[in-house]
Parts: sequence; structure tokens; C-alpha cells
Amino acid sequence: MSANLLIRNARPFGGPVQDILVRNGRFSTSHDDRPLAEIDATGCIALPGLVEAHTHLDKTLIGMGWFENRVGPTRNDRILADRNAKRELGINARRQSARQIAQTLIHGVLNIRSHVDVDTEIGLANIEGVLETRGALRDLVDVQIVAFPQSGMLPREGTLELMDEALRAGADIVGGIDPASIERDPVRHLDAIFALADRHGKPVDIHLHEPGELGAFCLDLIIERTRALSLQGQVMVSHAYCLGMLEAGRQGALIGSLAQERIAVMTAGSPSAPALPLKLMRQYGLTVASGSDGIQGTWDPFGSGDMLERAKYLAQRNGMANDADLEETARICTFGGAQGIGLADYGLSEGCVGDLVLVPARTLAEAVALTPRERTVIRRGRVVVDGGKLVGNLPALE
Amino acid sequence: MSANLLIRNARPFGGPVQDILVRNGRFSTSHDDRPLAEIDATGCIALPGLVEAHTHLDKTLIGMGWFENRVGPTRNDRILADRNAKRELGINARRQSARQIAQTLIHGVLNIRSHVDVDTEIGLANIEGVLETRGALRDLVDVQIVAFPQSGMLPREGTLELMDEALRAGADIVGGIDPASIERDPVRHLDAIFALADRHGKPVDIHLHEPGELGAFCLDLIIERTRALSLQGQVMVSHAYCLGMLEAGRQGALIGSLAQERIAVMTAGSPSAPALPLKLMRQYGLTVASGSDGIQGTWDPFGSGDMLERAKYLAQRNGMANDADLEETARICTFGGAQGIGLADYGLSEGCVGDLVLVPARTLAEAVALTPRERTVIRRGRVVVDGGKLVGNLPALE
Repeated sequence: MSANLLIRNARPFGGPVQDILVRNGRFSTSHDDRPLAEIDATGCIALPGLVEAHTHLDKTLIGMGWFENRVGPTRNDRILADRNAKRELGINARRQSARQIAQTLIHGVLNIRSHVDVDTEIGLANIEGVLETRGALRDLVDVQIVAFPQSGMLPREGTLELMDEALRAGADIVGGIDPASIERDPVRHLDAIFALADRHGKPVDIHLHEPGELGAFCLDLIIERTRALSLQGQVMVSHAYCLGMLEAGRQGALIGSLAQERIAVMTAGSPSAPALPLKLMRQYGLTVASGSDGIQGTWDPFGSGDMLERAKYLAQRNGMANDADLEETARICTFGGAQGIGLADYGLSEGCVGDLVLVPARTLAEAVALTPRERTVIRRGRVVVDGGKLVGNLPALE
Repeated sequence: MSANLLIRNARPFGGPVQDILVRNGRFSTSHDDRPLAEIDATGCIALPGLVEAHTHLDKTLIGMGWFENRVGPTRNDRILADRNAKRELGINARRQSARQIAQTLIHGVLNIRSHVDVDTEIGLANIEGVLETRGALRDLVDVQIVAFPQSGMLPREGTLELMDEALRAGADIVGGIDPASIERDPVRHLDAIFALADRHGKPVDIHLHEPGELGAFCLDLIIERTRALSLQGQVMVSHAYCLGMLEAGRQGALIGSLAQERIAVMTAGSPSAPALPLKLMRQYGLTVASGSDGIQGTWDPFGSGDMLERAKYLAQRNGMANDADLEETARICTFGGAQGIGLADYGLSEGCVGDLVLVPARTLAEAVALTPRERTVIRRGRVVVDGGKLVGNLPALE
């Protein structure tokens, strides 16, 4: 599964034209005389594998019947509709996660962190389904699984125990959810989440939609627990809308504290949610990742899962139009994501894993602005997508 | 140029399957026995021609060298960069407008209102260029031209006279621009604009980015002049960000007054600009149109010009995810636009012009959410785009 390949005339991250060599599945600079498979990347920008740092592989309806969305507008309406859909529509997590992976692979998404529901109705079925898909598709994509209490943990007795089981069954990360507005007890929720993480030696990723000062208070609690348990570099806060809703002094101080504890923030750049202050976050050295969130599900019917398109959305949400701005959002959807979810050996340097996306574009900014679809995707030195088309078939996971 | 065609098994605006007949370039119900050309639209939603109610055909850089954007963040930075680019990049309005039209025709955009710059540097060159393109492509698309004082009218002496000339030369609509923040004299700017409109018997379309109460004050002045000159149904306000920035009482009253004078509002649903209260605007019966604004220009490098994608953006900006919501934004990008820019005989009813877009989708909501590209576009009963590909060549306008 680790191949050799010479990629001619690519422009790594929009820089000068050069050849890129993969030996035994990793980037290398040691040329020798052995003949090599090679491809021509003239006219293409080379990016490391795109990083999907936040999605819900078990929720997509791709390939299923059309779901007529009549769901109410609140988050609780949507959580309820989501839980009902699992039962009524028979969403098969194994099949659906494979379908989403197949769709996003075409775009060059080679690393995925997926939240996967754990609740007292479905138990571990979704975790098991996504684990199966992960195993079957491991040659094509790396998947991290977050045990995610979508329906609430404290209000639904037994959920915490199921999360514990999920972590023993193979889930990689402890998920949390709005400690105040859903859990109704921020301290007890966060204490339980962090205790799980500590016991299993696993990272934490918390959905935090809480607005304004309520969100800021929850962030304070997260920062305190990260420091107390020495979990620097092991905690991600997803969404963190509150960071876009505070007065400037409070905003800066909070971002500074997050950066100090190396807590990463994931933002999808949703057009209808508060915009996060990306430039300020960068100034403070905060790690910023991005994700598609749910794709084509009961929450909303949108989403391609293309993380280059996500870089475009991030720029648009923040009124960023300069070439330098677009390069920055491309960085968030590659290196930022990789750092946020803790990938080892990520990038285009010697020794990094040989994952690469070739995008036909004159500049990196153009790649972000126009998101060309005719990409070539290379996984560990092997071409898996050629000109936007999958090479060969995926394992059947119906 | 007016053809006969039978379109089998289409679903008009997502409704029940039916055949659609075009006779002599118009929708008809009178079947007779003469054999007809026919196409099969099974699996497709039929929409009337998409309406681009606000763009800048003379500003796009499509097909030109990559413009490295280092422009500052303010509107004045961008206006200056825009004016310099016309000269330095040699943007040819005739050629560039044709390129944009060719690109958006593929998506099914058959009606366009374009603002076209008039200023003391380029004079009427851009107006003349877009007029030429309009003439050459009139069998494919209808174009309305707004004489637009992008660089300011009052501060740049001679601009008002040039606008007057432009209207005599064939421009259809009197354009205005931020009466306070750019023109520095709201009353004198609006008086001049409305006097031009009155003298030429032509409609008005005003770019209004002014925020909050400043914007609301300008809207008051626009409403007063619309009423005084009996220009009901002849005035459009483009952007009108202020409508998304007022306290509820003021917001409702202002929207009510706009609706009463039949002043239309155009919103691009930009993710970085204030969201307009689309549902409230609909409740008041306000005509809402949408547009792409500039596509791939010096302001920003984004934009496909696909008005179905624009319907998606409008929904996303407003957190609208229901099927009914998406149908509403599809309506804005078709019927809303048509009403806003004053198109006659628009729609799918008997006697309307035979313009149609067939979109492969199960429901109208799906068409908006996923914006499939393999569309078939019919102009006056003639297939001009088949499965996303142009049928035949456009006249050369290099």
C-alpha cells in the first residue's frame, strides 16, 4: 500500500515549480537511478491531503431517498428530528459513512475527524458501523472517531457509560456538547468529559454553540480543566461561536488563554453563525481547523464535503478577498486541521506521508476562489483519483 | 429565433410531472397534430430562466491573467483599485461581458441586469462595449444596462452629464451609489438621480451599502422621491444592508413603506454583509431579487454567476434549511428577480416567453441545495445548453 511516484512540475502550496518524489509512501528527496512511475502535474498547485476536522459521517443521507425537511428552527428541534430519522429512515452508519468518504475522497480529503452519535436508543451501533468503514477504507483515508453524545449526556442516563464503552471499542476521542444549554450543568458535564479523557488517555472535542458570555464562561471552564489535567494540545473546541460575539478586550484575552493551553478551535465558517475573528486568532497563534459539519443530512441538505470549498467559505464569511487571505484559509483546511486533530508526519516535507492533492489552478488563491473539480489525489504515493474520477472501485459497504 | 418544442415529463417548479409546450417561442397549451421537436425531461425540475438582477458585466476578469489581489479592505480602496485596473489591465468591456454571459448561460441565466461603470476616465466606453455585446448575444440572453457612477457622481464633475449621455446612448436604468458615504450629500445625489429618471422616463437602481440608521435615512429619502414622482414599481435598492441592522420596530415600518411604494430590494446574500430579514420582507409583500454582484474581478475573485447557487447562498446566510425555505429562495432568483427588474411575460404560464432551465433533481429543494451542473437551457423554445454544454458557438467578441 506504500508506493513510489515522481510528480513532475507541481507547485507545492502555490510556490515555485518543482518535482515531488514519493518513496515507499513518503515524501523523499533521495533520487536514485531506479525507474519510477511518474505523472505530470504541470499547471497544478500541490496541497497536502485536505483535512476534514469536523463532520458527522453517520448522519449523511447521500444516496438515500429525498428527506423532505420540515424540521423546526431550534437546535433541539433538529436534535429530535435527527434522532427520529436514525430510526425511521434506517440510516445505516456503515454504508452512509462509506458514501460520504467516497464523495469527499474525490476532492482530496484524506484525513477525517468524525463525530459519531452515541445515545441510549442506538447505543454503539453507529460507532461500530463507522469503525467497520474505517477498517475497510483505511488504505484510502484516515478516520478519527469522536464518541459524541448528540442527544445529551447528563439528561439521558446511561449515555456516559455508553461513551466509556465506545472508547474501549475503538473510538479515539471524547466528545462533549453544549455544557449549559443542552447539558444544563456545565461543571458536571465538563468534569465527566475530562475525567473520561484522563482515564482513557484520549483527546477531547467539544461542540460549543453557547452564545456570548455563556460560551465564554464554558471556555473558561474548558481552559481550567485542560490546564489542570495537562491536556495541552489534546483539546479542540468545535464552533465556539462565542468568540465572534464578545467585546474586544474579553475576546482577545480568551483567545490568548486558548492559545496558551494549545486548545484548537474548529470553525465551519457557516454563513448564518457568528463569524470568528480569524485574523486575530492567527495573531495569537491559535490553532484553527475547519470542517464541513454535517453533509446532506436532516439538519440541512447542503454540503459537498470539499475542504477547498470550505476554505472559500471561510474567506467569504470573513470578507477576506486578498490572495494572502485565501492562502491563509487554505492553510486552515490543511496544516491547521492537521495540527488541530493531531496528525503526525503531515505536510509536503521530506519524511511526511505521501498524501497529495493536485489542483489545476494558476495560484493557490485561484484554487480556493474557483475550487476546480478536476483534481488528482495521491495517497501514500498511489494515484487514487485522476482528473476528478476515482481510480478503481471502493470496497462494497452496502 | 422563436422555435417550437415539446418538453416531456418535466416538473415545473418542482410540481407534478407534465409536458410543456413552446410554440413560436412562447409557452402554449394548444396542442395540434403537427409533428414537433421534443426532448425528454424525466427526472428534471423545470424553472423559468434564472434572473441575474445585479452584476457588473464590465468588471469580470474571466479568461484574463491572474490578478494578484493586494487591495485594502475599505470600499474606497476597492473602488480605486477597480478604476486603476480598467486602465492597467486593459479590461475590455465588450469582450469581458461576453465571457461572463457565456459562463452564466450554461447555468440557465437568461435575464441579466448589469451595472456598467460611467466615469470621467473611461467615459462611455464600457456602456458602449456592453451595448455591443448585448446586441450580438440578444438571441441568447436579455441584458438591462444601468448607467452606474461607480467612482462617485457629485465628487467627480462631469459624471452626471456622462450618465445623461449613457441613457441617450441606450442604457436602460439610472444608477445611484451610496448617497452619504460616497456622495457626501444624500439629498443632492438622490435629487439628481431621480431627476434623470424622470426626464428619461427610465427606472432607478441604487447601490446602498450605508449602515444602520444612515442607510435607513437614505431609504426614507428614496421612498419620498419614489412617491413624489409616482415611480412605484420603477425603483430598486441594491444591497440595502441597513435593513438587517435596525431595531425591530424601525425595520418593520421601513419594509412596510418600501412595499407600499413597490420599491424592490436586491440582496446577494453575501456571507460577510448583514443578512436581510427575508421572511419578514416576504410577509410585507416586498419584491426581493438577487444577484451575483461582481464575478471574478478585482473586488474579489469569487463567483460562478450561477443563480441557483445564489439561491443556496441566500438560504445559508439566513439559516434556512427547510424545503419550503429553499423553494422560497429559488423563487427570489426567478420570479422575484423578474418582478424586481420589470420583466414582461416571465414565467411558465401560457403566453410567457419560452425560456426554461431543466435541472436534474428530485425536488426543487434538492436543486437548490446541490445545484447540479448538468442542466439543459431552453431559450424561446430552442435548446441552447444541453447537459451543461453549450450547443453551437457564440459569436466571437474578442
